[in-house]
Amino acid sequence: MAKIVMKFGGTSVADLDRIRHVATLVKREVDLGNQVAVVVSAMAGETNKLVGWVRELSPLHDAREYDVVVASGEQVTAGLTAIALAAIGVNARSWLGWQMPLKTSAMHGAARIEAIEVEGMIESFKPKLINERLEQGQVAVVAGFQGVAPDNRITTLGRGGSDTSAVAVAAALQADRCDIYTDVDGVYTTDPRIVPKARRLEKIAFEEMLEMASLGAKVLQTRSVETAMVHRVPVRVLSTFDAGAGGTLLCDEDDIVEKKPVTGIAYSRDEAKITLHRISDQPGVAAAIFGPLADAGINVDMIVQNVSPDGRRTDLTFTCNRNELGRAMAAIEAAAPTIGYKDITSDAHVAKVSIIGIGMRAHPGVAQTMFRTLSEKGINIQVISTSEIKVSVLISEDYVELAVRALHSAYDLDGP
Amino acid sequence: MAKIVMKFGGTSVADLDRIRHVATLVKREVDLGNQVAVVVSAMAGETNKLVGWVRELSPLHDAREYDVVVASGEQVTAGLTAIALAAIGVNARSWLGWQMPLKTSAMHGAARIEAIEVEGMIESFKPKLINERLEQGQVAVVAGFQGVAPDNRITTLGRGGSDTSAVAVAAALQADRCDIYTDVDGVYTTDPRIVPKARRLEKIAFEEMLEMASLGAKVLQTRSVETAMVHRVPVRVLSTFDAGAGGTLLCDEDDIVEKKPVTGIAYSRDEAKITLHRISDQPGVAAAIFGPLADAGINVDMIVQNVSPDGRRTDLTFTCNRNELGRAMAAIEAAAPTIGYKDITSDAHVAKVSIIGIGMRAHPGVAQTMFRTLSEKGINIQVISTSEIKVSVLISEDYVELAVRALHSAYDLDGP
Repeated sequence: MAKIVMKFGGTSVADLDRIRHVATLVKREVDLGNQVAVVVSAMAGETNKLVGWVRELSPLHDAREYDVVVASGEQVTAGLTAIALAAIGVNARSWLGWQMPLKTSAMHGAARIEAIEVEGMIESFKPKLINERLEQGQVAVVAGFQGVAPDNRITTLGRGGSDTSAVAVAAALQADRCDIYTDVDGVYTTDPRIVPKARRLEKIAFEEMLEMASLGAKVLQTRSVETAMVHRVPVRVLSTFDAGAGGTLLCDEDDIVEKKPVTGIAYSRDEAKITLHRISDQPGVAAAIFGPLADAGINVDMIVQNVSPDGRRTDLTFTCNRNELGRAMAAIEAAAPTIGYKDITSDAHVAKVSIIGIGMRAHPGVAQTMFRTLSEKGINIQVISTSEIKVSVLISEDYVELAVRALHSAYDLDGP
Repeated sequence: MAKIVMKFGGTSVADLDRIRHVATLVKREVDLGNQVAVVVSAMAGETNKLVGWVRELSPLHDAREYDVVVASGEQVTAGLTAIALAAIGVNARSWLGWQMPLKTSAMHGAARIEAIEVEGMIESFKPKLINERLEQGQVAVVAGFQGVAPDNRITTLGRGGSDTSAVAVAAALQADRCDIYTDVDGVYTTDPRIVPKARRLEKIAFEEMLEMASLGAKVLQTRSVETAMVHRVPVRVLSTFDAGAGGTLLCDEDDIVEKKPVTGIAYSRDEAKITLHRISDQPGVAAAIFGPLADAGINVDMIVQNVSPDGRRTDLTFTCNRNELGRAMAAIEAAAPTIGYKDITSDAHVAKVSIIGIGMRAHPGVAQTMFRTLSEKGINIQVISTSEIKVSVLISEDYVELAVRALHSAYDLDGP
């Protein structure tokens, strides 16, 4: 007997038939004698509809009211799922964020989970703990994506927050594992739409998954992986529609026996590049550039500064999210007098391709293989950034598919 | 400066444009210096959609989960209305049932309001009371129709419950008045669709409105009128779409100077009649009939038992809601051996027409006018029931319009 958390995303609960299907998946685990907490997203399309209404009423809306409106989507699914479970004889009840309570920061719209009180619900509610109910054989159906702020108002965790809810609930309940059911059957060596020979990974280390997620693989939300890594929650990614397919287990790197140098290839098209030409090569200039960007709330990703040939003037290039390019340019141009540059250029037709693998640490020459492979295909590398377990390069958007396919072969990731 | 509660029904908040219109009506009261709490229903159609989903998943659903699903409708409207208010510069925040908290019984799906705590919110929330916020000039946007049960789960008050929420909030806040905005501009002497000469009433006594509501006038929900009467909350019924039209004030009968014998004519087509022929005229037979009906949850309305010509056998007729006719017949037939009747007949083509007026108490002969008027039109009276301030008759459904029009004239209610 195990205690497990099962999480179902929006496409898995998109209509009543799918909710009924989810109920059968849950029942199977219950019939195996497991204690089960289910975390559900809003029905596919609902969140977008609600967000649309809020934005149409007021682009500058109160984030607290946004949360009141948007959190209703998961509330509906939680209730419907509990009803679907009861209809097939499974004892179940819904839990909303404020009922658990899943306490978060007051940063409405993108709140961070502070604590899930497993030991005590709000004062009047002590005897009825989720854990107690699980032990009595009742399935807990938790509304994902939502929590409650210190002032007792509803919060949401930001897009993809239901994954994070699920992992946090699993951590709080000390669950044996957290199964994330989604519309793909696991984590792949790369995007199978680009590389048909991409293989499903049986296991992936938390650190690798974190890089995969933040570098563009959209299977899991970055924060949910972080939470799983911090609390060492074993997470499985599975298909709702083909639950026998095996899935991918996220685990400690020690649990992975064969460590290839590269585990996966990620890419992202959401990139834009800005170059400042002939800035003065002296202390303080970086602060003059990145201070205004930080003030404008722009996330800068890669940065490269050339060695200046004359020791006085040089070029600096950085990347940011493509959606933020306009605001980034405006912030730089407003700070032009302080920075002092000769010219500024930007390029929104760039993409980032990354190789990821914990094995990289033990295998020298991994980056060299990447550079050589791209060079052989005639792909120019514009910017490079590295960490202990990944190498990212910025290239022209036109070559993304070619680069990913070539690297997938070069690192011996192609399936049979 | 007054403290007022404004309640808007589903058609008044049916889409974003109407919610914006509601915001302007609220702003007008705020600009007059009033403290305002707004109570909103779900957008028209939403509740039916949610109820439909629940029923489709399981006809025998858990009422607690039904409430979780259905209460989301008012949650969305409350958030959107607060956003629409902020967008035109009105300081506003939403309050959900559990946040106020509006405490109810645990009778999910049709909960009764137990208490609205104005003095203390749940422990952690003490400093932020609705009343305090109203005094600071913040508009409270309350999600109608919903509350919270003693075990901290969401409840709903049953259909039309938002009116009741509004009156209860007005009572708890000791508001100067409660304005119910709806799609008609007040309470009429009778249904204007039947009698074009029907007049809007400037004032109506609580007791009269209670009879009007329970006898078929659908402007206000019966329970909201009861709550208003008990707590002496002055209630106005107004049109959302023609707010200048004046409306109707519900008040103490002492506040009504000119008391006509009859204030209004109500009718209901939701009636059915059952007659038991030749039952034994002896003690205990009524209990044998109405016991099984009560056990089946059927509300019996009018009852008439003829004097038996021979002192041994007689006929008994009663009415119930037309939707419950089948179940009522089944309950009687199952109890046939205990009751002992010769024959049973039913008629679903009947309707109830009622005259209502607190002036009736002081004017003798009011009922006689009714009987004579119907007789002159050749309308047969099947059953009669009376109270201190109303007379109801059961007639063939075919004559409803004719009866209502004739009575409206006979009691001098026709407008100019």
